[in-house]
Amino acid sequence: MFKVPEHQVAGHIAIDGKLGPLIDESGRFYKPLQDDGRGSKELNFYKSFSSDIRVPDNIRKFFPVFYGTQLLEASDGSGLRPHIVLQDLTSDRLNPSIMDVKIGSRTWYPEASDAYIQKCLEKDRATTTASLGFRIAGLQIYESKESGFWKPARKEVQSFTVDSVRSVLRKFVSSNFSVGSNVNPDCSFSSRVYGGSAGILEQLLELKEWFEDQTLYHFHSCSLLILFDKQSLLEGRTPVAEVKIIDFAHVLEGKGIIDHNFLGGLCSLIKFVSEILSSLKESSIKSGSTES
Amino acid sequence: MFKVPEHQVAGHIAIDGKLGPLIDESGRFYKPLQDDGRGSKELNFYKSFSSDIRVPDNIRKFFPVFYGTQLLEASDGSGLRPHIVLQDLTSDRLNPSIMDVKIGSRTWYPEASDAYIQKCLEKDRATTTASLGFRIAGLQIYESKESGFWKPARKEVQSFTVDSVRSVLRKFVSSNFSVGSNVNPDCSFSSRVYGGSAGILEQLLELKEWFEDQTLYHFHSCSLLILFDKQSLLEGRTPVAEVKIIDFAHVLEGKGIIDHNFLGGLCSLIKFVSEILSSLKESSIKSGSTES
Repeated sequence: MFKVPEHQVAGHIAIDGKLGPLIDESGRFYKPLQDDGRGSKELNFYKSFSSDIRVPDNIRKFFPVFYGTQLLEASDGSGLRPHIVLQDLTSDRLNPSIMDVKIGSRTWYPEASDAYIQKCLEKDRATTTASLGFRIAGLQIYESKESGFWKPARKEVQSFTVDSVRSVLRKFVSSNFSVGSNVNPDCSFSSRVYGGSAGILEQLLELKEWFEDQTLYHFHSCSLLILFDKQSLLEGRTPVAEVKIIDFAHVLEGKGIIDHNFLGGLCSLIKFVSEILSSLKESSIKSGSTES
Repeated sequence: MFKVPEHQVAGHIAIDGKLGPLIDESGRFYKPLQDDGRGSKELNFYKSFSSDIRVPDNIRKFFPVFYGTQLLEASDGSGLRPHIVLQDLTSDRLNPSIMDVKIGSRTWYPEASDAYIQKCLEKDRATTTASLGFRIAGLQIYESKESGFWKPARKEVQSFTVDSVRSVLRKFVSSNFSVGSNVNPDCSFSSRVYGGSAGILEQLLELKEWFEDQTLYHFHSCSLLILFDKQSLLEGRTPVAEVKIIDFAHVLEGKGIIDHNFLGGLCSLIKFVSEILSSLKESSIKSGSTES
């Protein structure tokens, strides 16, 4: 009845006897509470957030629905363990393309221990976190029935440079992308995924507006999950493109200060996405055609 | 003919045989080129920026005017030394109140050496840089003819907490502030200094709009100088409130990435200033009166 999520692109994966999240057929996602305190911190966040009346309705949609906790046989065979029960964000998706983008130019926070800060700082400098204000933590891009997904290994994702990130953001919305090919990504889906009144860019801008003002929470080391139903798109239907915030093990109280770290990284991502959209407009003006 | 700037609130000061900037009667500010490479980096920035046609006109006003370089007898008696010649931002001011606010949640940059990064990181954590996204690096608040200025010593400024910063931003625009007094700052000048169409908040928002888009420069370790003519205000005239960006020894090329570090800190400062203005509005609504 419980199974390993098919479309998980980052984080601990429940295979080879390891501890990881599970899903069921009813569209729920079960995240095991880890022993190191991170699990209970994340649970506390969900409890506090889900009853926090200061969070506006239009912002709530960016968070997975929280259903409480449940004791469940853990995926590592260690017996019963409490799991946080959440909405499975990919349950009604057919072959979705997904990016997990960890936001912020630092993943540490001033209150953390020196050792933790040093560990995070090293990783932030080794990835694009420090330079870009975000890093891609995982992704899958659906190609076709024949080729399936491009889902680069963790090592490869961790070695992404600024240029790789720029390129992945283009491949994510391209029709001519295939693994190993050197074709310039055509970004031909960008206006239908990134653009439009319900597209990714508008959602990011809506989030940004909240982050310019909200001083409730600081979302350290959280990710934006960006996903759309690639198969719908290939079949000519309008894909539902979504942005969700996930991974709240390091959320702290805002104490009257905005989350400038998240906001800065979010603005950097917005700039990258905007540039893909505007470069497309320019090239279609030049060629005198409209976007496909 | 050359003298030590009367209203310098941060940085090296040209007293006791030390090397520091000088001013003259014509409204120019002479900043000595330091030997450690920072001086020439700052000079390169001014040269490149002043001829950069990609910088919009409305943004140029936030930067001191650059007049080139000049060989000058250095203030430390070491002989002739090149100085960067700039506009003296306080030359036409009578008893100005001034804050030097260093923007960004980090003062280091990924390309720097490990030793430099560690040094900066320590200072960023010891001050409000890491927590707030900015720190006050120096200030003076004019009180009255009798009391003169409150100009806290460097040590005191360096020990400012989040609460001190919040309090200084209120004292800066209060009529009832005096050193050593525990009176709650009335913020009675805030609508005329922070508020209004030519006020500090509007200028910060104008800058923010540029920073959301510009990928030309990364302004590491730069300050916003926020100043107004307190004496004019006390005499019933409208004070000219200004925001200027200064200190460009650590500016790097943006390479197509927005300066998310500066932008995040700027948004944090904007939130603090906005809150002072909105708390004032609320209290005047409650008391049924208009602001004085």
